[in-house]
Amino acid sequence: MGKIDVMEGILSKNQTYADMLRQTFTEKGIFVVNLVSSPGSGKTSLLEEILPLLKDGHKTLVIEGDLQTENDAERIRKTGVDAIQINTGGACHLEAANILKVLENVDLDLIDLIVIENVGNLVCPSSYDLGEDMKIVLVSTTEGEDKPQKYPSMIRVAKAMVVNKIDLLPYVNFNVEKCISYARGINNALDVFTCSCATGEGILDIVKWLKEKIATKKALV
Amino acid sequence: MGKIDVMEGILSKNQTYADMLRQTFTEKGIFVVNLVSSPGSGKTSLLEEILPLLKDGHKTLVIEGDLQTENDAERIRKTGVDAIQINTGGACHLEAANILKVLENVDLDLIDLIVIENVGNLVCPSSYDLGEDMKIVLVSTTEGEDKPQKYPSMIRVAKAMVVNKIDLLPYVNFNVEKCISYARGINNALDVFTCSCATGEGILDIVKWLKEKIATKKALV
Repeated sequence: MGKIDVMEGILSKNQTYADMLRQTFTEKGIFVVNLVSSPGSGKTSLLEEILPLLKDGHKTLVIEGDLQTENDAERIRKTGVDAIQINTGGACHLEAANILKVLENVDLDLIDLIVIENVGNLVCPSSYDLGEDMKIVLVSTTEGEDKPQKYPSMIRVAKAMVVNKIDLLPYVNFNVEKCISYARGINNALDVFTCSCATGEGILDIVKWLKEKIATKKALV
Repeated sequence: MGKIDVMEGILSKNQTYADMLRQTFTEKGIFVVNLVSSPGSGKTSLLEEILPLLKDGHKTLVIEGDLQTENDAERIRKTGVDAIQINTGGACHLEAANILKVLENVDLDLIDLIVIENVGNLVCPSSYDLGEDMKIVLVSTTEGEDKPQKYPSMIRVAKAMVVNKIDLLPYVNFNVEKCISYARGINNALDVFTCSCATGEGILDIVKWLKEKIATKKALV
């Protein structure tokens, strides 16, 4: 069996598990986000800003993926939201089987929103469906505006892009319009937000949009 | 054949090619760096700073790895240094076979230093030997000081770590000492540098250290 056959086998098995997850999430009316980015773009910081604003009226669960450490789950728990940490060991992405396993002991009837914070990696997680409603990709102003061009596979599968760390714009060489235009050149249906987790700018727009998505999913049950 | 067997097969084949490369580099006295980091940590920016300072007396070749675009090779060529761009398509790392292939038409007798700028990814490139003398890992002050803890496999295989973007320290929450201490906790033999490609701070120290490495390798032929 060759490398490509094995990859196809892995992805097809992952898809089976992802489909099972998606069916459960649909039945329960849970909106599910797969949050992806490079290491250090601010996925956890974004959640620290957003989650307190969703607490009123929404029950959220966060699943944290990292090679090592419980750091991110601990940061999330400080906001008062439940978080489950998955340590992948060496693995560069989460798979649907990881999510199925940790949800075995969770009462999903109580939950409106699940955010899966994937391993920091702008490449590999793009290939793995986790049963989510949407992948949201974060890029930050310190990474260079050409990231969408250089990592198009992730932009292609995402439904929304958040440009984070706009408070650092005066100090870095980053053209927000160019970055968005590169991204929309790859995926013109992309919803785009800009924000700063340091100043809070733009956070309310994301929260409002997310609340609408959660309500829409709920209404379908 | 299972997933693990196939991975072992891929890595063992990669090692064969890497050993061939390493033997050639040793015979020719070429010092080879495998430069790794997250997307946007400043690998290309670091090379733009370092390469002009090495030009006098050293002949360098840069090999650029990206999923897509020729952007980085073009930036390197503007410094007057030859650059070969490898586009991996979807692949999240360079393999030794990629390097062997692009070096087929290069006269290695003229070269003192090869820098391979890997795909921006803090996970997968750690598993692939490219025949290099050392992996140098870049982290940047905008990524959070806990990156060594969260991506230990890369820190473990690196010989040096460069903490980049120290000009942004006043604007971000990043403790340089903690970052270095986390990294040395995983790999206590790590050479560590701090620098800013925006202000040039710390660049000369890296250049001096690199010149010594190049000279040492050359002297062994």
